[in-house]
Amino acid sequence: MIRKLTLAAAGLAIAATAVFSASHVGPFDGAIRARQSHMRLHGHNIGILGAMAKGDMEYDADVAVGAAANLVALARLSKAGYWPVGSDSDATEGTRALPAIWDNLDDLDVKFAGLADAASAMESAAAIGLAELQEAMGAVGGACGACHSVYRE
Amino acid sequence: MIRKLTLAAAGLAIAATAVFSASHVGPFDGAIRARQSHMRLHGHNIGILGAMAKGDMEYDADVAVGAAANLVALARLSKAGYWPVGSDSDATEGTRALPAIWDNLDDLDVKFAGLADAASAMESAAAIGLAELQEAMGAVGGACGACHSVYRE
Repeated sequence: MIRKLTLAAAGLAIAATAVFSASHVGPFDGAIRARQSHMRLHGHNIGILGAMAKGDMEYDADVAVGAAANLVALARLSKAGYWPVGSDSDATEGTRALPAIWDNLDDLDVKFAGLADAASAMESAAAIGLAELQEAMGAVGGACGACHSVYRE
Repeated sequence: MIRKLTLAAAGLAIAATAVFSASHVGPFDGAIRARQSHMRLHGHNIGILGAMAKGDMEYDADVAVGAAANLVALARLSKAGYWPVGSDSDATEGTRALPAIWDNLDDLDVKFAGLADAASAMESAAAIGLAELQEAMGAVGGACGACHSVYRE
C-alpha cells in the first residue's frame, strides 16, 4: 500500500512537473512565442490555400487572395525582438530554431523575402482561378522549405 | 490510507486531464490558435512600444516604427477562418472569445480598423521622438481595450 501510494505520489509529481514546465516563463518565452505565433499564422494562411488546392475547401477567390495577401504582409513584418542571443534550440527548450539562424540573420531576411515573392505571385494567381492557385502552390511550399530545411530542427 | 490513496488517484486523474486537455486537438483548435497567435503578435509589438514608452527599452526610432507598422499590417490582415461557429468561450474550452463576437462580426472589423488607425498614427509619431511615441500610446491601448472590453472574457 505504501509502495502504491509512493508510486501515485511520484506520478503526481511528474504530472505536476509537466504542467509547471508548460506554464513556466523563461527569459526567452516572449521571443519564442512571438516567432512561433508568426509561423502559425503562416501555417493558417498556407492551410487555407492548400485546402483549396487539394479540393478539401471550395475555391473562393476572395478568401484565397486574402490568405495570400496575409502571407505577403506577414513575411514582410519586422522581426525585431524575435532572435535574442541564447534562444536557439541548443541553448533553450521549447524551440526548433537552429543556432545557424544567428550566423545567418541576413540570409533569414532573404528567405522571408522569398516567401513574400512567392506569396505575391500566389495573390495574383489565386485571383484568376483554381488551376492557377494550384500552379502557384509549389513556389510557396518551396519558400517555406527553403528556410525550414536549414534553420529549423 | 484508502482515503489518501483515493485522493492521490483523484489528483493524478485531474493532472492527467489537464495534460490531456492541453494537447488534445479539438475541431476548433486551428482557428483558436490562429487568432491567439494573431493577438500574441499584437502583444509582441505593443510590448516593444510600451517598453520604450516606459523607459524599459532604449528608444530606437527604426524599431519603434517597425513595431507600429507591424501593428497596422496585423490589424488589417484578413481574418478568414478565425471565427467558426461553435468556437466561442461558452461552447468550447481554451478560448476567451465571447459569443458576442459572432453577433457583431462587422463591429469586430470596426475595432480592428480602429487599431490600424491608432497604430498608423503611432507609426508617424514614433518616427519623430520618444515624447511623441509616449503621447501616441494612449490611443493604441484604447483601441485594444475597446475590443477586449466587449469581446474578450
